[in-house]
Amino acid sequence: ELAELAAEQFEHGVLNGKRVFITAGPTREALDPVRYISNHSSGKMGYALAEAALDAGASVKLISGPVTLTPPARAECVAVESAEQMLAAALDGIDCCDLFIAAAAVADYRPVDVAEHKIKKGSEEIMELRLVKNPDIVATVAGLAEMRPYTIGFAAETRDVIDYARSKLARKGLDLIIANDVSNPDIGFNSDDNAVTLVSADAEVSLPQASKRRLARQLITQIAALYSRTDSSTS
Amino acid sequence: ELAELAAEQFEHGVLNGKRVFITAGPTREALDPVRYISNHSSGKMGYALAEAALDAGASVKLISGPVTLTPPARAECVAVESAEQMLAAALDGIDCCDLFIAAAAVADYRPVDVAEHKIKKGSEEIMELRLVKNPDIVATVAGLAEMRPYTIGFAAETRDVIDYARSKLARKGLDLIIANDVSNPDIGFNSDDNAVTLVSADAEVSLPQASKRRLARQLITQIAALYSRTDSSTS
Repeated sequence: ELAELAAEQFEHGVLNGKRVFITAGPTREALDPVRYISNHSSGKMGYALAEAALDAGASVKLISGPVTLTPPARAECVAVESAEQMLAAALDGIDCCDLFIAAAAVADYRPVDVAEHKIKKGSEEIMELRLVKNPDIVATVAGLAEMRPYTIGFAAETRDVIDYARSKLARKGLDLIIANDVSNPDIGFNSDDNAVTLVSADAEVSLPQASKRRLARQLITQIAALYSRTDSSTS
Repeated sequence: ELAELAAEQFEHGVLNGKRVFITAGPTREALDPVRYISNHSSGKMGYALAEAALDAGASVKLISGPVTLTPPARAECVAVESAEQMLAAALDGIDCCDLFIAAAAVADYRPVDVAEHKIKKGSEEIMELRLVKNPDIVATVAGLAEMRPYTIGFAAETRDVIDYARSKLARKGLDLIIANDVSNPDIGFNSDDNAVTLVSADAEVSLPQASKRRLARQLITQIAALYSRTDSSTS
């Protein structure tokens, strides 16, 4: 009933005039021209949030890793592969961004060396792969000194979900974090459903399992409410 | 003109009564519940070969890694993720298999340890990943002592394509190898087109660029011709 109530309460103008950047999908980190490291993110949550933000009146830039979804026609879409490309697209025009929603599952690490040609299989039974840490996109945005947008991250965890989310919120300097438990096969990666808990410095709001589309509308409603408390331009 | 001629010459009965196994798509090798190593294979070539083999009268088992294609309704389809799962599916019923076509892009290596929970990003700038060699599916099938099918591999290379293909043919004990140059963005991975060279111990046949669907029919025609020369049951 809570979910339905929140869905009913979705208002179309709550993000009128706001510029929203949303990252979505996985990143792919090339090992060579054919191989890569990636993850199971389908992009569904980020795309649903883009749709809901548009419905709420925002102008949306959707920065997406490789997914099989069709982007909303009304969004400005930027297709990227790697975390470094995603960061560049995120920072491009960030001074006009009011809300930054980092729904992408960015690879934490990328190979140190990207081979120009396909790596030939050697005779070695064991191979060592050296990886280097990727830039932290949401922390970079949250750490901007000037014109910093209201910055929202995700925490996809398989255990101690709320604890990890709260520590991530503090460590990365985020305004809000949306936590979900990806160990539950009914929700999360590749699933059509999700269930999340919004965690801010002074609030914790759980939204029960619903379709990603419905949940996205609830999330945008909650995000707009929390954001309006901090948005000096509308106060 | 050569391509069109070959396409015209496609005969529907050339694989009548034959059992064909086809592997397709990439494999995914898990790092933890959300991350994996994979490659850019779309599965289009393998799926097109399955369709063409069915049209040529074969009964087809299509063993596919994760792709977004719809499998042909008349094929027996087995969905797998990892190389080890693909090998198990390939060996299941192999004693009834007449032709084995290994069109999948199998990951050469998989992580030594698969973490049960999502790996937390540490503070380390550099991470070492230990990988262990995967089973070589097509070489395993080609090396079967009894009831070995006519075994066909692929060589997706970015340079010295024919040389690598010929050395792979010998090293893995294959009957035939289908070589293509994936450094050409017009063909190969994720492209709708392909251009290949068939390489056997005593032959080399080049098929010019064509849609994967058309090329698959030409390949099945060529494969059936080469196979019939070796098939004792029909001689």
